[in-house]
Amino acid sequence: MNILIVNPNTTQSMTRKIGAAAERAASPGTTITATCPDFGPPSIEGYYDEVFAIPGMIGEIRKHPEADAVVIACFDDTGLDAARCATGAPVIGIGEAGFHFASLISGKFGVVTTLARSIPAIEHNLVRYGLATRCSGVRASEVPVLDLEIPGSNAADRISEEIARAIAEDQAEAIVLGCAGMADLANRLADRHGLPVLDGVSCAVKLAEGLVGLGLRTSMNGGYARPRAKAYAGSFSAFSPGTN
Amino acid sequence: MNILIVNPNTTQSMTRKIGAAAERAASPGTTITATCPDFGPPSIEGYYDEVFAIPGMIGEIRKHPEADAVVIACFDDTGLDAARCATGAPVIGIGEAGFHFASLISGKFGVVTTLARSIPAIEHNLVRYGLATRCSGVRASEVPVLDLEIPGSNAADRISEEIARAIAEDQAEAIVLGCAGMADLANRLADRHGLPVLDGVSCAVKLAEGLVGLGLRTSMNGGYARPRAKAYAGSFSAFSPGTN
Amino acid sequence: MNILIVNPNTTQSMTRKIGAAAERAASPGTTITATCPDFGPPSIEGYYDEVFAIPGMIGEIRKHPEADAVVIACFDDTGLDAARCATGAPVIGIGEAGFHFASLISGKFGVVTTLARSIPAIEHNLVRYGLATRCSGVRASEVPVLDLEIPGSNAADRISEEIARAIAEDQAEAIVLGCAGMADLANRLADRHGLPVLDGVSCAVKLAEGLVGLGLRTSMNGGYARPRAKAYAGSFSAFSPGTN
Amino acid sequence: MNILIVNPNTTQSMTRKIGAAAERAASPGTTITATCPDFGPPSIEGYYDEVFAIPGMIGEIRKHPEADAVVIACFDDTGLDAARCATGAPVIGIGEAGFHFASLISGKFGVVTTLARSIPAIEHNLVRYGLATRCSGVRASEVPVLDLEIPGSNAADRISEEIARAIAEDQAEAIVLGCAGMADLANRLADRHGLPVLDGVSCAVKLAEGLVGLGLRTSMNGGYARPRAKAYAGSFSAFSPGTN
Amino acid sequence: MNILIVNPNTTQSMTRKIGAAAERAASPGTTITATCPDFGPPSIEGYYDEVFAIPGMIGEIRKHPEADAVVIACFDDTGLDAARCATGAPVIGIGEAGFHFASLISGKFGVVTTLARSIPAIEHNLVRYGLATRCSGVRASEVPVLDLEIPGSNAADRISEEIARAIAEDQAEAIVLGCAGMADLANRLADRHGLPVLDGVSCAVKLAEGLVGLGLRTSMNGGYARPRAKAYAGSFSAFSPGTN
Amino acid sequence: MNILIVNPNTTQSMTRKIGAAAERAASPGTTITATCPDFGPPSIEGYYDEVFAIPGMIGEIRKHPEADAVVIACFDDTGLDAARCATGAPVIGIGEAGFHFASLISGKFGVVTTLARSIPAIEHNLVRYGLATRCSGVRASEVPVLDLEIPGSNAADRISEEIARAIAEDQAEAIVLGCAGMADLANRLADRHGLPVLDGVSCAVKLAEGLVGLGLRTSMNGGYARPRAKAYAGSFSAFSPGTN
Repeated sequence: MNILIVNPNTTQSMTRKIGAAAERAASPGTTITATCPDFGPPSIEGYYDEVFAIPGMIGEIRKHPEADAVVIACFDDTGLDAARCATGAPVIGIGEAGFHFASLISGKFGVVTTLARSIPAIEHNLVRYGLATRCSGVRASEVPVLDLEIPGSNAADRISEEIARAIAEDQAEAIVLGCAGMADLANRLADRHGLPVLDGVSCAVKLAEGLVGLGLRTSMNGGYARPRAKAYAGSFSAFSPGTN
Repeated sequence: MNILIVNPNTTQSMTRKIGAAAERAASPGTTITATCPDFGPPSIEGYYDEVFAIPGMIGEIRKHPEADAVVIACFDDTGLDAARCATGAPVIGIGEAGFHFASLISGKFGVVTTLARSIPAIEHNLVRYGLATRCSGVRASEVPVLDLEIPGSNAADRISEEIARAIAEDQAEAIVLGCAGMADLANRLADRHGLPVLDGVSCAVKLAEGLVGLGLRTSMNGGYARPRAKAYAGSFSAFSPGTN
Repeated sequence: MNILIVNPNTTQSMTRKIGAAAERAASPGTTITATCPDFGPPSIEGYYDEVFAIPGMIGEIRKHPEADAVVIACFDDTGLDAARCATGAPVIGIGEAGFHFASLISGKFGVVTTLARSIPAIEHNLVRYGLATRCSGVRASEVPVLDLEIPGSNAADRISEEIARAIAEDQAEAIVLGCAGMADLANRLADRHGLPVLDGVSCAVKLAEGLVGLGLRTSMNGGYARPRAKAYAGSFSAFSPGTN
Repeated sequence: MNILIVNPNTTQSMTRKIGAAAERAASPGTTITATCPDFGPPSIEGYYDEVFAIPGMIGEIRKHPEADAVVIACFDDTGLDAARCATGAPVIGIGEAGFHFASLISGKFGVVTTLARSIPAIEHNLVRYGLATRCSGVRASEVPVLDLEIPGSNAADRISEEIARAIAEDQAEAIVLGCAGMADLANRLADRHGLPVLDGVSCAVKLAEGLVGLGLRTSMNGGYARPRAKAYAGSFSAFSPGTN
Repeated sequence: MNILIVNPNTTQSMTRKIGAAAERAASPGTTITATCPDFGPPSIEGYYDEVFAIPGMIGEIRKHPEADAVVIACFDDTGLDAARCATGAPVIGIGEAGFHFASLISGKFGVVTTLARSIPAIEHNLVRYGLATRCSGVRASEVPVLDLEIPGSNAADRISEEIARAIAEDQAEAIVLGCAGMADLANRLADRHGLPVLDGVSCAVKLAEGLVGLGLRTSMNGGYARPRAKAYAGSFSAFSPGTN
Repeated sequence: MNILIVNPNTTQSMTRKIGAAAERAASPGTTITATCPDFGPPSIEGYYDEVFAIPGMIGEIRKHPEADAVVIACFDDTGLDAARCATGAPVIGIGEAGFHFASLISGKFGVVTTLARSIPAIEHNLVRYGLATRCSGVRASEVPVLDLEIPGSNAADRISEEIARAIAEDQAEAIVLGCAGMADLANRLADRHGLPVLDGVSCAVKLAEGLVGLGLRTSMNGGYARPRAKAYAGSFSAFSPGTN
């Protein structure tokens, strides 16, 4: 089984870290391909970055028709809906993956993400997915995404402090880490705080394996219908949907 | 990895069918044990049956401390909360499993269950899980649970008719089959209706494999805390929670 | 008019206290019978205890066919749905009774219960009943249920402190006491805090009197339909639903 | 115990009918006083009529300081919030009374009212009370309020037809009659349709008896605080709130 | 274009201040008429005052049939529904106007009003309008309405303190001032706090200009249907709805 | 005052029609500039088209720093959040504009859009904006976007039929037309159906005039904070956010 992990930002070190986390989570027989676009933002911190990451991410998906499932490795599930229209394979966002798994092992889960400006997008996703009532709160550690790549930064400590607040003030029963770049911290933080800490990348790999294992694919009845055939103008012409 | 599948009713033929569906869904390396209690109702059709199924189901869980994960194989997720307090292993209900997987491959999913009297319990679960906004409607086929065990009954046709209505009238984009006894019908109905049809048993096996694979266990901060040690009176004394 | 009060735990001193509270609330012409099962948990503190209390509670209801109404005297309304299927008489939970009465005399009410582990079950009930939007918050005093039976414990003071917080921090306009064992504290706490403090036992008696007075009984259209006739296996055979 | 029933419209025949329904519902020892204002609309059919009914209704409440409880006998609970500020006695609207009682004996209840223009006000009340999720739908029979006073009109038949639709199309498990003028029809319609049919007037009497019996009064912490002392100008000067 | 601004209380100094704010907001070609009733409460602080302000307010609307649009200048949108039935012209409440404009320039807005007793009415409006999920919280400055008319009072400072709390504790991104009498403070407070501060009076003028400019009028299908013709009794006979 | 109208698709005839509708709605003193990108999809019909329209649309906004307000003229409010981060001027989507105006003149409004595949995106927006509870339903006429540009097509009739259904079956009190390309049909359809029919383009122009007239700009506290300065890779480098 081939699972394609697309990091929608262009930072290769982060792509490698995400790929390693996915490898650790993968079952025997699962092949992980981790990739990122070569155009767009180096990190996704808010709505503006997000929209410039999506075309490149869709491009990566189109380059990999052999994928049995696709994982979008940005916590705000950048471009998830468009990706589901772009391929017949199931597509999982790491944000939703973390939320669904946390819902299975806790009454209420908290989310600890990077910057406050990313909170509204995550909250909107929770409402759309239906899982907002299961979330005790989304908190920002105010660690910028790429600081997570800097060895020796105090990023882990700041995240840990915010987890402590989520437990004490919000009664969080589990914690979902709100950035693909935090994938390597989950186990250590779980031990420190004595409750489940979930990394969306590994959760998404497991959900992808499950969907592929059961032969389940995205429904094409409704909003995820294949795009109607039409010619896109100018520099996006290569993305034009063909006849389906 | 050992997954314990507990059918909370006492009907052995149904337990075997559920076990077979679980085996088909299981990955290499996963051992399935399917069991059912020897006391309680032969089928669960409404709130009354449900409460008399739970003690026996908890008993089965307690008999299998080797289980890495537990699946409750009744679509109304009978006794799920109590089961999560009874064991350190993660516990998955087949209802929630179907809802979570359907949420990943459709905008809105429909549910087709057995009797109308079971609809309110399913609707309550959807609200509690947070996924009610993702459900286009819960419909009853008016097929009693044990009719699904009778070769040559027209159960499959009646379920198929209700699926057709869910698509036409509710705009369901995927269908979750609302009874463990329907596990063998999913593929055929998916082909007939041209959209994903999910069986909760196999979805639950995949979620259980995923949680175990990542080492995730039920949080004990909150409602799923282990029961306080106390002596139960009379015939339930064997279920008394010990010191934890 | 005969009202049956079932304390679903097996602690007789608590049953007597609940019975006395019900007697104080009852109108002339109302006969109160307070009872509890002889098997099951001595107190209900969380989901696990709850499921082992229900069979005994249903048994008590079945022993009293002369009851015109039934009150379930545990604040999480243990087994309320099953009880409504088990008898033609109306069934009232003391939790819902407190919530409904508080909704009539305040904009938002707070709940102060025993242990934090009981909060999720109460919150789920509030959502199901529809009254979650009327509740300013559910708070735990961390007084175990049976401490309420110990003369000279500081239980009342700890509950009073939590009421003070509900008023100051949550803007609660009335307080519902979240355990049948607190029934004797309501008046004193109302005087101390200068706002309505409601005990669910007495509220349930009044609602039961009202429903019986008007000849209203549980609807059998829907989830509260009488259970289908079937034979339960093993030790629960005596609970098998007959033909209705 | 004295219960004041205020019909907020000026139609005396309807006041008498409401008073008779209240008498039938009242327990021994309860004295019913049914009254209506001498200025304002003869029937309340929509938002405009409503606001001109409230001053007269408040006037009636102020004329009866001996009342232990007040019932507002218009199904849209006209002026309920203002009335709760105007008196220390508990105040019950017949709409909310019907909704609360129906919630205790059914999973979902339907409402059948007079004119379609009254539906939005009833729906808003359901949302505010929190009970909208318990209502299967509000339907209009298109019977004007005062047609209910005309002997030989086909009003009862048109209401009955709409009840049949609520059961068949909305799966209503109980019916709340949506006008004080329908109080005398409840029993007959319950028999015809084989499910509980609730009249808000009698439900309100029972809730009032319950609250008074327990000594419960409206909280003054919050929106129901007594009005601040001030002088009203012109023709409303007699309604000026004094020092409280 | 003629816009009628009705201050529903009888305080003329406040009416003049509101009129001046409306004039400042009005476009060239818009004529503002600011008026208030000559009977009723001098300020609206809670539900009781509210119902005695509405008849006079409706009276002012009826005196000005030339108005192309009507603005109700009390923050709890006193009598908005009745006013929409009373005239063919569109009617805007200053509360809803502030909420709608704030929704266009922020993710979540906070509201700072006068007294705590007014909070529930504002919260109910937010729920009804649908915009409660956009509001980070309604806070009271505990400044009585008419203190806003007293030169040299510390009202502005107390409001400013509450705005600071809404930003720090509730993450409000914009502030809606919760009283018509605060109309002159918006710009100063916006400068001090560095985020948008909205005054409902000027927002309502702009919405009124927009609706009139597009020829949009209140729908008469539904709850805003014109009142049915009937004769009101007594002192309200002049308000009787005629044939429409 | 300069209002920039960006049609996010590349179809110039539609841009001209939208521009004309905006001109008709504009007040004296308002200058309308209508534009569209030169790369991207010719029409937006679902999630996939949407993401390829946004970069071009942001590009148009960046080309027009003189704009006092920006209107996004696609009914699913394509890229609205990103656009709000891209400019200090207020940004209005025509979908939200229609919803907000319809909320001011009706209790519940219906939406009639082009293709069924666009319904989920519109429903998600309604939930996010908070106005889902005000919407009676979103219906598709199954008229593709560019058919609206074809003289003599039966597009208007098909839209009209769907409006008739929204009134009869959903009790819609007003209709919002769900595509920028329907801007010229509003008045005719309003006359035919006897209720308000709103075109989002003209509503957005009026909201933009209002916000600019009051000097209101998007809050930068929260999700609409200006993007952090960073260098975008490859073909999107020209969109890199600078220091703000």
